[in-house]
Amino acid sequence: MADWANLQLIDHHCHGLVQRDLDQGEFETLLTEASTVAVSAFDSRIGLAIRRWCAPILDLPEHAPADEYIARRRELGFSEVDDRFMGSAGLSGLCVDTGYVPEPISTPADLASLAGGAAWEIVRLEQVAEELYGQVDAIGFAQAFQSALEQRTASAVGVKSIAAYRVGLDLDPARPGADTVADAVWRWFSGEKRLADPVLQRFLIWCAVDRGLPIQFHVGLGDSDVDMKSGNPLLLMPLLRAIEPTGVPVMLLHNYPFHREAGYLAQVFGNVHVDVGLATHNLGDRSSVLIEETLELAPFGKFLFSSDAFGLSELYYLSSRLFRRGMAAVLGTGVSVGSWSASDADRLALLVASGNASRVYGLG
Amino acid sequence: MADWANLQLIDHHCHGLVQRDLDQGEFETLLTEASTVAVSAFDSRIGLAIRRWCAPILDLPEHAPADEYIARRRELGFSEVDDRFMGSAGLSGLCVDTGYVPEPISTPADLASLAGGAAWEIVRLEQVAEELYGQVDAIGFAQAFQSALEQRTASAVGVKSIAAYRVGLDLDPARPGADTVADAVWRWFSGEKRLADPVLQRFLIWCAVDRGLPIQFHVGLGDSDVDMKSGNPLLLMPLLRAIEPTGVPVMLLHNYPFHREAGYLAQVFGNVHVDVGLATHNLGDRSSVLIEETLELAPFGKFLFSSDAFGLSELYYLSSRLFRRGMAAVLGTGVSVGSWSASDADRLALLVASGNASRVYGLG
Amino acid sequence: MADWANLQLIDHHCHGLVQRDLDQGEFETLLTEASTVAVSAFDSRIGLAIRRWCAPILDLPEHAPADEYIARRRELGFSEVDDRFMGSAGLSGLCVDTGYVPEPISTPADLASLAGGAAWEIVRLEQVAEELYGQVDAIGFAQAFQSALEQRTASAVGVKSIAAYRVGLDLDPARPGADTVADAVWRWFSGEKRLADPVLQRFLIWCAVDRGLPIQFHVGLGDSDVDMKSGNPLLLMPLLRAIEPTGVPVMLLHNYPFHREAGYLAQVFGNVHVDVGLATHNLGDRSSVLIEETLELAPFGKFLFSSDAFGLSELYYLSSRLFRRGMAAVLGTGVSVGSWSASDADRLALLVASGNASRVYGLG
Repeated sequence: MADWANLQLIDHHCHGLVQRDLDQGEFETLLTEASTVAVSAFDSRIGLAIRRWCAPILDLPEHAPADEYIARRRELGFSEVDDRFMGSAGLSGLCVDTGYVPEPISTPADLASLAGGAAWEIVRLEQVAEELYGQVDAIGFAQAFQSALEQRTASAVGVKSIAAYRVGLDLDPARPGADTVADAVWRWFSGEKRLADPVLQRFLIWCAVDRGLPIQFHVGLGDSDVDMKSGNPLLLMPLLRAIEPTGVPVMLLHNYPFHREAGYLAQVFGNVHVDVGLATHNLGDRSSVLIEETLELAPFGKFLFSSDAFGLSELYYLSSRLFRRGMAAVLGTGVSVGSWSASDADRLALLVASGNASRVYGLG
Repeated sequence: MADWANLQLIDHHCHGLVQRDLDQGEFETLLTEASTVAVSAFDSRIGLAIRRWCAPILDLPEHAPADEYIARRRELGFSEVDDRFMGSAGLSGLCVDTGYVPEPISTPADLASLAGGAAWEIVRLEQVAEELYGQVDAIGFAQAFQSALEQRTASAVGVKSIAAYRVGLDLDPARPGADTVADAVWRWFSGEKRLADPVLQRFLIWCAVDRGLPIQFHVGLGDSDVDMKSGNPLLLMPLLRAIEPTGVPVMLLHNYPFHREAGYLAQVFGNVHVDVGLATHNLGDRSSVLIEETLELAPFGKFLFSSDAFGLSELYYLSSRLFRRGMAAVLGTGVSVGSWSASDADRLALLVASGNASRVYGLG
Repeated sequence: MADWANLQLIDHHCHGLVQRDLDQGEFETLLTEASTVAVSAFDSRIGLAIRRWCAPILDLPEHAPADEYIARRRELGFSEVDDRFMGSAGLSGLCVDTGYVPEPISTPADLASLAGGAAWEIVRLEQVAEELYGQVDAIGFAQAFQSALEQRTASAVGVKSIAAYRVGLDLDPARPGADTVADAVWRWFSGEKRLADPVLQRFLIWCAVDRGLPIQFHVGLGDSDVDMKSGNPLLLMPLLRAIEPTGVPVMLLHNYPFHREAGYLAQVFGNVHVDVGLATHNLGDRSSVLIEETLELAPFGKFLFSSDAFGLSELYYLSSRLFRRGMAAVLGTGVSVGSWSASDADRLALLVASGNASRVYGLG
């Protein structure tokens, strides 16, 4: 069987790293989706996984206490820490979402250099739109957005929609007409810059369909600002039916706890793909089960790896390590109980690790 | 402990087989609920299960490649293939839904003969109604439907509602009045033949309740035409509360990924029964977990076997093989860890395999 | 590693015991949430768990038949039976919901004496309100309720809302104004005593927030009267966002089959805690998986034990036994595969067993 432990992964959805040293509170805030640190995140599966898997990379014993971990992290400095984790993550490529920058973070080029792999850009639709806020008149927005999207994605490999955070996924599938869009822009420009309008979210998505690049959707797991019940991927079915004939790939991100629902969509829609990013490291050593459940219906040819890492290089390392471990558990168990052959397992592992991402995003 | 591998099953929901040889694309289209063959269905759990469990029945080694499997299938011819799979499925009885016939398929009698068991008919409510489309006037529809249903079910053992496909399961529980029905029929007859009206779906269901036969409901898993979020069985609760006092059995079919919700309904409503048909073969070797999760709350006396096989005789064989394997895993593990005795396990296995179906449908 | 089998638990949500001997039908009715005994509850996981775990406490062999179990129970008499099960449950404390009394049941003091632990009261908000039905005028209700709540909770440690049973959890988060409350009371007093008004449920909850005690919410699993789809804890998100800044603890009870969703809420909201009471004994030997799934995202510092036992002392014993067994499986497996150290496991076990309850409810 393949050397699972050294399988190179393409991370098809991730973010930059913060450029500073962190105290324990700051570290814990970046570790999970919690709004406040009420109880220690180290007493969650993710924190226990940090102590197990990440401590040795910083020369600490497995299960080193949280305060020793943080102290050692500060002692080494974030730059050395990032070097170690990114260098150990085993990533041959990264598709970096550049649309969320609450503070200075590393660029796709920085990440590529740290990881020793290639990096490509994923452009966030809402960010492109919000840069036009108040810069054009309502009637001119549609064309201005299309031009801006064309320009911003000239060398990008995909786009991302955070409709789930703004208006939920229960989107009318119809492409909105010009007058409807102009009216919605007029209302938006009369309010705050943050775009959260169902007509405009649909407009952005249809412009992305025209552009022809894979479209990533935030689904499921997020912080307490997300309306989780409106992040159920089944709500996307009307829109997926409308997009399917165009052949434009749709990438459902995260998905937990709706990962079985997402797996179903990956089976029935020819253009739908799924991952379990963000959830993989949040579930720690339990992530094998998450992968197993998603692959109940999702074809191996539609399942991808992503970390959705943001801020902490530990999240890149932890996700890739846990993902390899989970895939090895799923595929290895299958071989040992006779569900498939070892050569099938090797072939399917390569699809999931990098083959699907290369094919869907057209990576070098 | 019982000889699980030879436990005879009653398949309480299934369909006929296509009467032709198939190329790989046609085979894959019938294998899953996918709308298009974007990636090979053989790289899904169901396809891997076909290669594991079905290949040897066609004299191929386990895990034979997909193209060899299809070639061998064509070489033998569909008639011989169907003979082998149906003869190996270990079915003592089949309740055949005759309401979905997109092309010529085998009859209940054909299936009985192939399987070496008995066959009974399940009549699809929507099909009976649609045969009256334009044949009566709106005011006469109600009585005409009741007569037709009486006649069509004279020797049937149950009926089926596909309300989930047409209007979703969030049905008003009230029996609609005569004027309301006539109005709805008038509107229906002014449009297309395909019945998709919430008033009329309710009318059909209440006529079925009057008829007194078990009523099967499509729930959860289906193709991309189904609105999966409206196929959540919890939406049926108001109607289940209304039907429960009549004592008419309600059979929730498929249920995935809402099988735990369905198990709950089977616990709390005296007349509700559940299965995991269709999902059993779609999940391949993972189906044991599906069975285990459904049986968290569902009483063993309310859980049945069905394949929901359509078109391919492999689906009969695969479902029954995987169902036996899953029940053996659940019940056998229980015995080995001391959760119940071996004689309990044997008794519960017989209930699930055939006893519940015999009792609920009143089979010979 | 700790002596799991003797770990003392605090049961943070439970009820009194019926004060009479029971025949098999009465026993089965109290055993599950079923509305009628259509098939024997003994042929469910919970019944099989009774025969496995409870029979020996009544001097019967494991897996004794149901009728022998009931006969032995009657022979001993309910008082002796309750003594045995409560004395074997290993409870150091109980937080008793006194708001559901369909027949004479034991008091918190009785339960404390039987269990050999301490007991505290949880006051049901709807019961306090319904005692004022027709006793005050609509305009005076708000102040009368606040006074009554103050008085009733003088020595209580928490309150409970059954909004899920009455109006569902999709509650407007805004605190209703005085006029709105008075109008709603006027409407309520014009109808039946059972309170089921979304405005008043919100009013009760906000009064509880002012009172500052932990607020328990019924979530998920219940009998066939509950609208399960409206019991999804994700519906509570707007209200949780509104309560979080007050720091008042919110306790999500039961949660099955939405326990992963509840675990998510426990991660992202600083004041949200979860349990899997009621489901623990209903799932029998399968409850380990329920605990494991809830702890995917829920921090160990936010997860508590409860039985939600009502009526039968078996449910106290079964829940606590299964909960210890499940925690031992989760934490012990983690140690054996290296996910965390044995000393971490011991510390986390103590948090879940009693530490979290002591801290959140401020118990002696």
